[in-house]
Amino acid sequence: MAANDAMMDLLRVLKDKGSITQEEYELLSGAAKADDETNSAGQGEIKAAAATLPRIETRGKLELATPDGEFSWRLGGRIHMDAAFMNNDTGFDASGAKSDPTLTSGTEFRRTRLDLTMTLWRVWQAKIQYDFTGAAAAGFRDVYVRYLFKGAQPGHLTVGNFKEPFSLDELISSNDDTFNEHSIATNTFSLSRQIGLQYSTWGHDLWTGTVGVFGEDPVASANHPGAGNDAEGYSVVGRLTLSPFHTADRVAHLGLAGSWRTPDQGDSGITFGPRPEINQADILVTTGAIPGIEGYTRLGLELAGVYGPVHGQAEYYNVDVNRGDELALGAAGMFEDLNFDGYYLQGGWIITGESRPYKFESGTFENPKPRSIVGNGGWGAWEAVARYSHVDLQDDDLGICMLATAANTCGEQTNLSGGVNWYPTPNFKFTAQYVQVLDIDGGRYDGAEPGIFQLHTQANW
Amino acid sequence: MAANDAMMDLLRVLKDKGSITQEEYELLSGAAKADDETNSAGQGEIKAAAATLPRIETRGKLELATPDGEFSWRLGGRIHMDAAFMNNDTGFDASGAKSDPTLTSGTEFRRTRLDLTMTLWRVWQAKIQYDFTGAAAAGFRDVYVRYLFKGAQPGHLTVGNFKEPFSLDELISSNDDTFNEHSIATNTFSLSRQIGLQYSTWGHDLWTGTVGVFGEDPVASANHPGAGNDAEGYSVVGRLTLSPFHTADRVAHLGLAGSWRTPDQGDSGITFGPRPEINQADILVTTGAIPGIEGYTRLGLELAGVYGPVHGQAEYYNVDVNRGDELALGAAGMFEDLNFDGYYLQGGWIITGESRPYKFESGTFENPKPRSIVGNGGWGAWEAVARYSHVDLQDDDLGICMLATAANTCGEQTNLSGGVNWYPTPNFKFTAQYVQVLDIDGGRYDGAEPGIFQLHTQANW
Amino acid sequence: MAANDAMMDLLRVLKDKGSITQEEYELLSGAAKADDETNSAGQGEIKAAAATLPRIETRGKLELATPDGEFSWRLGGRIHMDAAFMNNDTGFDASGAKSDPTLTSGTEFRRTRLDLTMTLWRVWQAKIQYDFTGAAAAGFRDVYVRYLFKGAQPGHLTVGNFKEPFSLDELISSNDDTFNEHSIATNTFSLSRQIGLQYSTWGHDLWTGTVGVFGEDPVASANHPGAGNDAEGYSVVGRLTLSPFHTADRVAHLGLAGSWRTPDQGDSGITFGPRPEINQADILVTTGAIPGIEGYTRLGLELAGVYGPVHGQAEYYNVDVNRGDELALGAAGMFEDLNFDGYYLQGGWIITGESRPYKFESGTFENPKPRSIVGNGGWGAWEAVARYSHVDLQDDDLGICMLATAANTCGEQTNLSGGVNWYPTPNFKFTAQYVQVLDIDGGRYDGAEPGIFQLHTQANW
Repeated sequence: MAANDAMMDLLRVLKDKGSITQEEYELLSGAAKADDETNSAGQGEIKAAAATLPRIETRGKLELATPDGEFSWRLGGRIHMDAAFMNNDTGFDASGAKSDPTLTSGTEFRRTRLDLTMTLWRVWQAKIQYDFTGAAAAGFRDVYVRYLFKGAQPGHLTVGNFKEPFSLDELISSNDDTFNEHSIATNTFSLSRQIGLQYSTWGHDLWTGTVGVFGEDPVASANHPGAGNDAEGYSVVGRLTLSPFHTADRVAHLGLAGSWRTPDQGDSGITFGPRPEINQADILVTTGAIPGIEGYTRLGLELAGVYGPVHGQAEYYNVDVNRGDELALGAAGMFEDLNFDGYYLQGGWIITGESRPYKFESGTFENPKPRSIVGNGGWGAWEAVARYSHVDLQDDDLGICMLATAANTCGEQTNLSGGVNWYPTPNFKFTAQYVQVLDIDGGRYDGAEPGIFQLHTQANW
Repeated sequence: MAANDAMMDLLRVLKDKGSITQEEYELLSGAAKADDETNSAGQGEIKAAAATLPRIETRGKLELATPDGEFSWRLGGRIHMDAAFMNNDTGFDASGAKSDPTLTSGTEFRRTRLDLTMTLWRVWQAKIQYDFTGAAAAGFRDVYVRYLFKGAQPGHLTVGNFKEPFSLDELISSNDDTFNEHSIATNTFSLSRQIGLQYSTWGHDLWTGTVGVFGEDPVASANHPGAGNDAEGYSVVGRLTLSPFHTADRVAHLGLAGSWRTPDQGDSGITFGPRPEINQADILVTTGAIPGIEGYTRLGLELAGVYGPVHGQAEYYNVDVNRGDELALGAAGMFEDLNFDGYYLQGGWIITGESRPYKFESGTFENPKPRSIVGNGGWGAWEAVARYSHVDLQDDDLGICMLATAANTCGEQTNLSGGVNWYPTPNFKFTAQYVQVLDIDGGRYDGAEPGIFQLHTQANW
Repeated sequence: MAANDAMMDLLRVLKDKGSITQEEYELLSGAAKADDETNSAGQGEIKAAAATLPRIETRGKLELATPDGEFSWRLGGRIHMDAAFMNNDTGFDASGAKSDPTLTSGTEFRRTRLDLTMTLWRVWQAKIQYDFTGAAAAGFRDVYVRYLFKGAQPGHLTVGNFKEPFSLDELISSNDDTFNEHSIATNTFSLSRQIGLQYSTWGHDLWTGTVGVFGEDPVASANHPGAGNDAEGYSVVGRLTLSPFHTADRVAHLGLAGSWRTPDQGDSGITFGPRPEINQADILVTTGAIPGIEGYTRLGLELAGVYGPVHGQAEYYNVDVNRGDELALGAAGMFEDLNFDGYYLQGGWIITGESRPYKFESGTFENPKPRSIVGNGGWGAWEAVARYSHVDLQDDDLGICMLATAANTCGEQTNLSGGVNWYPTPNFKFTAQYVQVLDIDGGRYDGAEPGIFQLHTQANW
């Protein structure tokens, strides 16, 4: 594709007409060819250099990659800040051994993370993510090494610290949660991140399957060396999801997850008890540390969908606690098995018309992407949200539970929450949400109905 | 702007002269146009690609940005290391309840920070900065989300953890301090970073105004949840600066700041007491924890200037402590209000002739930029500095203060300091500074006059 | 180098032949020159822009630099994860005061680091590296400022926190260790990183020399301020290496290192005692805290080599402990001086044929670079390794040592280890290694022979 064809043509014409001699023609066409090579070389050099330039993304995220994508580096992070204002409802019956909740208003950093996610040599990945609001083992979040299967059956094998495949609410990134905090049901029954090994795969644009073996979280695990415990606790966890359709504005999602866990025999007991949907608030119902647990089985059911700007999500959790009979408790002579459960229903309406996006391969949802940007003449995306949640930590066989002592406050809790979320750009989110405890039935705070208002400020990149 | 006009002209001439036919002319000029398009397309393609390339700065700082600057990412940080050599002056009168200061020579990391500062979607900013010499909440430094007002009245609104707008000495970045440590007066009366909400604006190339509401710092704030305290302490803080001129080598700066603060009622007391201008040294005068504080009002006055290579800076601070009368103290029957104050004067002469730069919008100063670089044939910038500082923590109404017990050592302290700063490049700084305690009047170390020599090594990027 | 010489030549020919007039010639050649300038300017502009583009490396590491290399920024890091399975060998004689080792199987994050290494202004460097498995001072790794001597005698001067120049096994990066953990001998006698000042140089492609003064590590150093200790401990350390040849597949390395150290007089005692070559396992032999140490002298001898795919490495360490006579111990009346030593021999065979690379300037080794990449049709590099190690912490003059109490368990330990290392790409490493304690002679675990199996997963970039 020489760029001086005209000169070559002209020389030929002039030679044919005898305007220049054959000798002159040869000299001149030689010079013309040299010109062309000089030109092409200059451009080619630049094009070659440009082709090897990394692909650099700076709009909304920071990612450097090779042009073929075989290597990529993304420096991500998030800042989540909260201010909570508590209404303690101190007017309820505080006679007997019961006490008022003393929820403290105030501010806190909820999450301050940096992470580096790398694709290396095409089929390998590694991620290191640290949350500075923790320290040492408490600060570990996703830290893993992953192998990508790129063949006929796509999938990945992951080893490290990451979320177990249990609970849609838990698996959705904290950047993308509809509510500031998980429901009391999720918070009670999901274990979030642990050190483990997991295989995940998917197919037919319809189903995903994930199965993993997990030990303990890094804090619990770091307490082992030299501590003389018998063994590290471990789980087998699996999750299946089904999504018959998932377009930009229509999604149906079903999920089923199960887990069987043997706790560390050195632990003094396992506790089930949630924060009341605001991190800064005290736990209001809890089983206390249950002794003698040999293992427990968890079950989770997920149902979620998107219909234009409206989205809904519901889950049911059940845990079946198996306790050994080798230890006696009072007159009862042995430990009884226990069963707890909980559920939530939540929904949102994106007033500005965007839809909540679905990620098929992980079976999770993301924040709506605002169509109009604040700072570019727009108003961002606005969303109204509501949630009803319930957890039942009452089991007659727990025995010690109805005593409602300070140390052991099991019972039932029901919450109703509502709020407004504002997404001025894809990187920022502000929410104002109110959690009303509808009822606490049993336990230390029996009958209390505190309310909590929370402002949440978020940057994620 | 075709780049083969000569060919077009020549063809026209040859056609006009009859050297080539009209038909040949049309063919040849068509080929010439095609050549030109090929050429232009090649160059245009490359230019278009170049225009979308991010703007990447690697000389002295690491910043990636979109060409229009609407998005930018800067990975910054600092390493500050100190070695201190203490002269304890153990020869003073140590009779009675008084004791010798036991300052310990040694090395330490003073600051080791990484930070990521982002501009996103033109008018939004976020910054996350962590100091690894702390841990968890103690490591938080600037972590905030900011909205930039780009209209007729420029300014910004910030929410997160950052420095309250009080004290020029405090607001100058620790990278740019003339002395290794703040004066004893600054260290006593400024609160540095807290979680807060702040609006800042400026105008007429003359004035800046900043006002904010602040809660507690992240360490104090993180102690709240579940701790049962009544409330988080909070302040209202404002600062006005005036700079009638600020050229490259002439600056005048005046500042006035005020703050009213209500402490957390759960706190057992508030302490005013500075490190003696070296971080590794013990506190020599302090009020101890003052009980019964209902609130306190701080006032700060700033005066600073640059005249060629000479710069000067002075501040006066006053705090008025309001104590309630609901608690009795000994025979006195109630708490008295208290008043403390302090000031410093400091100056520097940049021997190599550079001037100390001023940042008008924040009303602060920066390190001189060396004209000649070590490593590029130069010697860097050299600066001689001196400071006189005084703090008065003696108030007869404090009552318990003259007892000079170990637990409560209020008094007055006066320091004289001097040193040499070397800036071999804009990214490195080395200092050798000596702090002489001229006098301690009252308190546990009454009459002691220790001296401290410190070597400081700094990299910042 | 004009790129339209042909046009100029043609015009000259046509003018000489009279096909165009002198006037036409001048006009046309003017136009041709203008064309050339337009063309050159376009290309020159692009070339100039390209020349100022940073040099960005994204294949296997992330580094941004100026084209001349005078500034560079590298964001590195590593994830090391371990799972250990312990065989406690509880069958040995546990009578008397002796006890069984209770090694606990489990998982842990061994290292999770991020680091930023910078070259600034050609001859300056800085590095900040933090390990998130620690916290605050415990997380500091390499944090330093360095000046590069680029003249006739190359070298560098470093101040900060980094490894003292003692022990080849210690100086090799933890990414590049042949075994998951250092030998028991190395772990006993090397001090790794401390705050210090060091000069290093090399010459004739034959020798390197390094000498430094070191204080304490950041954890010990951070405990100083206000703690009332007398002084910070300090060492003088030096190392000489000799490598008569070091090609891609043939290396000979000899090293000699010495150190004299005065401990912090405020310390209650110095302990020599290694982890048994797995970090999660308890210490099996240790001197306990030795009181009355005035100083100690360490000596290290290094011998290593590479012959094609085979490599070997051996070291001998000796410490001579000088104890004061100012404190009496029982009937003995004064402390006796002590002497301990240890050594290891290890070797590896890279089955897939690669050689272990040598870094002459630091006198250390690196991981083999796999010739075939997993993910690109290859199988990576595979290596079989073995090690024999011994440490003798028995000294009759320690007096209290033969008592074999829980608090003091000195003795001798001998280990034999073997394993397989897999390097699927240059950024990932997986190992399976077994450590068999051949013998513990003396101390609390006298006669025990536990074994430990460990799986190690590593990403480094």
